[in-house]
Amino acid sequence: MLERIFPALTWARGYSRDMLGGDLIAAMVVTIMLIPQGMAYAMLAGLPPEAGLYGAIVPLLIYAALGTSRTLAVGPVAVVALMTAAAAGTVAAAGTPGFHVAALAIAMMSGAIMLALGLLRLGFLANFLSHPVISGFITAAGILIAASQLRHMLGNATSGKTLQELVPSFLANLGQINRITLALSLVVVAFLFWARTGLAPLLRRFGLNPKLALLLSRTALLVAVVVSTASVWAFGLDARGVRIVGEIPRGLPQFGWPALSFDLAQALLIPALMIAVVGYVESLSIGQTLAAKRRESLDPNRELIALGAANLGAGLSQAMPVTGGLSRSIVNFDAGAQTPAAGAFTALMIGAALMFLTPALYYLPNATLAAIIIVAVMSLLDFRALPRVWAISKADGAAMAATMLATLFIGVEQGLLAGVGLSLALHLYRTSRPHIAIVGQVPGTEHFRNVARHRVVTDPAVLSLRVDESLYFPNARLLSDRILAEVAGNRALTHVVLLCPAVNSVDASALESLEAVNLRLRDAGVTFHLAEVKGPVMDSLKRSHFLEDLSGQVFLTQYDAMQTLSPVLTRDTRAAPRCETAL
Amino acid sequence: MLERIFPALTWARGYSRDMLGGDLIAAMVVTIMLIPQGMAYAMLAGLPPEAGLYGAIVPLLIYAALGTSRTLAVGPVAVVALMTAAAAGTVAAAGTPGFHVAALAIAMMSGAIMLALGLLRLGFLANFLSHPVISGFITAAGILIAASQLRHMLGNATSGKTLQELVPSFLANLGQINRITLALSLVVVAFLFWARTGLAPLLRRFGLNPKLALLLSRTALLVAVVVSTASVWAFGLDARGVRIVGEIPRGLPQFGWPALSFDLAQALLIPALMIAVVGYVESLSIGQTLAAKRRESLDPNRELIALGAANLGAGLSQAMPVTGGLSRSIVNFDAGAQTPAAGAFTALMIGAALMFLTPALYYLPNATLAAIIIVAVMSLLDFRALPRVWAISKADGAAMAATMLATLFIGVEQGLLAGVGLSLALHLYRTSRPHIAIVGQVPGTEHFRNVARHRVVTDPAVLSLRVDESLYFPNARLLSDRILAEVAGNRALTHVVLLCPAVNSVDASALESLEAVNLRLRDAGVTFHLAEVKGPVMDSLKRSHFLEDLSGQVFLTQYDAMQTLSPVLTRDTRAAPRCETAL
Repeated sequence: MLERIFPALTWARGYSRDMLGGDLIAAMVVTIMLIPQGMAYAMLAGLPPEAGLYGAIVPLLIYAALGTSRTLAVGPVAVVALMTAAAAGTVAAAGTPGFHVAALAIAMMSGAIMLALGLLRLGFLANFLSHPVISGFITAAGILIAASQLRHMLGNATSGKTLQELVPSFLANLGQINRITLALSLVVVAFLFWARTGLAPLLRRFGLNPKLALLLSRTALLVAVVVSTASVWAFGLDARGVRIVGEIPRGLPQFGWPALSFDLAQALLIPALMIAVVGYVESLSIGQTLAAKRRESLDPNRELIALGAANLGAGLSQAMPVTGGLSRSIVNFDAGAQTPAAGAFTALMIGAALMFLTPALYYLPNATLAAIIIVAVMSLLDFRALPRVWAISKADGAAMAATMLATLFIGVEQGLLAGVGLSLALHLYRTSRPHIAIVGQVPGTEHFRNVARHRVVTDPAVLSLRVDESLYFPNARLLSDRILAEVAGNRALTHVVLLCPAVNSVDASALESLEAVNLRLRDAGVTFHLAEVKGPVMDSLKRSHFLEDLSGQVFLTQYDAMQTLSPVLTRDTRAAPRCETAL
Repeated sequence: MLERIFPALTWARGYSRDMLGGDLIAAMVVTIMLIPQGMAYAMLAGLPPEAGLYGAIVPLLIYAALGTSRTLAVGPVAVVALMTAAAAGTVAAAGTPGFHVAALAIAMMSGAIMLALGLLRLGFLANFLSHPVISGFITAAGILIAASQLRHMLGNATSGKTLQELVPSFLANLGQINRITLALSLVVVAFLFWARTGLAPLLRRFGLNPKLALLLSRTALLVAVVVSTASVWAFGLDARGVRIVGEIPRGLPQFGWPALSFDLAQALLIPALMIAVVGYVESLSIGQTLAAKRRESLDPNRELIALGAANLGAGLSQAMPVTGGLSRSIVNFDAGAQTPAAGAFTALMIGAALMFLTPALYYLPNATLAAIIIVAVMSLLDFRALPRVWAISKADGAAMAATMLATLFIGVEQGLLAGVGLSLALHLYRTSRPHIAIVGQVPGTEHFRNVARHRVVTDPAVLSLRVDESLYFPNARLLSDRILAEVAGNRALTHVVLLCPAVNSVDASALESLEAVNLRLRDAGVTFHLAEVKGPVMDSLKRSHFLEDLSGQVFLTQYDAMQTLSPVLTRDTRAAPRCETAL
């Protein structure tokens, strides 16, 4: 029971020295990435750098106790930081105390929403964010994130929340570029890009074993931070216009209830819900990918609970919203993390850094953080996804394009809402117009196929229609319209057979439509039959009085139906060998 | 071409004397019903009596020219009148000129919406109003309509839009009942109820032939109007507190553009949309029921155009919104209407009545109109529908109950919105959690069934899952969660087979989920296969790179899959006769 609440108890019992070794090394590598990334994502969210570092302490300890993934690295991530900035920006200006309170409120509210969804086992609601929508959203968010860092890369005042604002601002501020800042950021971007693929081979050439070389290559961020900070300090670049991080409060975060108000909560409810859903979906997908490699599995609803508690902890400890991050999780996994204890160790190391290292970060240039963000979001961009999805399904492609355009030009919330709304609408539209085929018999067989596609024989007195979709209210009336239209003016007709092999369910509307069809056909002197009805559908029919009222019969197969209704037509197929065990 | 726009041209060409006879008699009977009903529904809508009579002139002429139903009787109907009162009541008080303008605006806007939906061939959108929702709404509206007539039945000031307001108002006004009004309305209600079933047999006993007796029984409304009007006039009941209709402007309606404003249009847009959809759905369902009896059919989109034009005509001729009405359409059909010309004749007769008969209606008591309304709406009430729908489907029952409760206690718009929203949400919930079964082989056969329900054999190295739903984003992740959960910790497993006989379609999200499953299973050393994939699904798979990446195969049947993956298991079934022609 206690293990169900605290999955940590499961692995803590068998914790071994080997596991400790793997977890400690992984924690060290992740910490080295997390210190600059935490500060960078705090900057992206419009928050002071410590809000990012705090996000790597309490939330990580909570997730280590409650999470079901063994290798997921929780903490500040770029997309959630961008969404936080957009949401908090609607209630206060970045840098003001009101903005910071709003960010804490978002962490707490999205945490509470995740917790509630998890406890109520409503994790499946996140599924309504379709793959194309989330993928389009992440790419568009990546573009916005990169564009938002132009001010730090160029050292000027480029600003804006959407491309509509960012592009004119970029052009207007082109004259105010700080050349040293630009040079610094370009060098860091180039180094980090090279380090991704070039550093490990170089280290191997110096005689390191491949595993250690890969581990050490993860310290590229640290190298960039140390070298750029040292350069600013040594050459006094801050006096020449290079903006620096400055003072970071020394010590651990203080716990405290943020100054929430009802108005604030109301204004931030929808953004908090979206941040909760996006954070959860991203985190779950990363966690599942990693878990599958070791034949482990995650419990989606308990992941929601763990992430929800982690975000509540973030909001109560002055930290920005958190979720599972892709790059650090992969590093954590590759570095050999064995249990969530690696996350707890990471938190302790970040805590130690906050107590002892903050003076060393005083001269860290914002340009370096911007470069770290830019390199990180490059992996989020997937421009080939749109043509790929479009080729598979125009509806999905349209939802994806709408999400991207609305996110880029209107805003992150509007983009997500547009995508979810459009994909639901297109899904409903699709299921509301099912494929309905008139079928005839393939001569000499027991098979019945679409008359429009195959050479088949039909009996003018019997109309056989196959519907290729479950029947529910969005398409119920369409089916009856179609049947009545086929019957209208067709005086030769005496039987209509509806083939239901593709009907997985019927609802009350579909049943009433079928009842209406039955009565209207009876009024017109036509008998109505069903064939190939599945078990669950038959159960639904039995719960209503449809079967008592049905003017015709329910046939097991269409061949049975035609043998009864049109013996002349089926007789000549007797020559073909009949299959007694079919279906 | 011209016939496609004006269906009237189709029947006008072959118009015969027989048809003229039938149409004239039907028009006469319908007119006799329509004069009191039109005035009554105008009263229900909070409009002067002539607004109802005008609704029986121009709209009927337009529908006769454009409509595709031969027997539908268009005009003022109770539910639309109630919805008009509710909507116009949000912008002005009943009886004020602003209220009348709002009602005309509603007619024009709902007409324009119908026309647009019809021209864009978007009639299927009305399908999202599910049967249980519309049925619950109509019953709840019927209760509200009856309750709203209490003031006229009792001759007091009972008022309110919902039961929340009507019940306390009824109790507070119990002391102010006008006894003569109450007596009069009770007598009329009793007479009309009796006349429904008792009048025709009585007339037959007097020697009339059955058909004529039935026709004459339809004049019960006329009898009630004449007798009650004469009583008020003869005994001076209006001086003793019996409220009367009073002066009705003599002559035909004037054409004129109502004083619309942008604010008014904005305030009435949602109600107008709902009135359009409810009016269309009701009218179409009545029209289809009648058409089917003569093996005729309606064109739903052209019905929308005809009803839309009729309502635009209503708004431009000082009339209330209209649609096809159940009781008058049945009377029209039974009385032998052959073509829509019956509707045009009805319009002419109503016009004649407006020119010559209005003085005779001066002393018509409101109580009689209220009694007519009450008797008319009794046929709308269907209290057994809720338990019936609930037995078929709890989701549909819940949507129906929510519609009824919200309509009765919050308002008509909110009721409809709650119903549509809940039924969509429940539909999405249902499809988001598909039935997934692990299947095994029925010994000695080629059949595979749910291991939980049947005695089947399985191979621990092969997991066979059957999913009973199309795969799209609401359920895509659930399937992959389930597969990964089954694989987790199961070291014996080497193959997973997904059976897709019930999958009618896959979207991009489902494809990406399947791709992720494939990759994650491959990482775990498990091969992923599909079996019994339908043609359209196979087409979707081919449009992506799923089939190239698939670690396993796509099998035609599950039996093929097991023969390949688990020859030991299937070998002993060889004894059973194999069927070469299966599927």
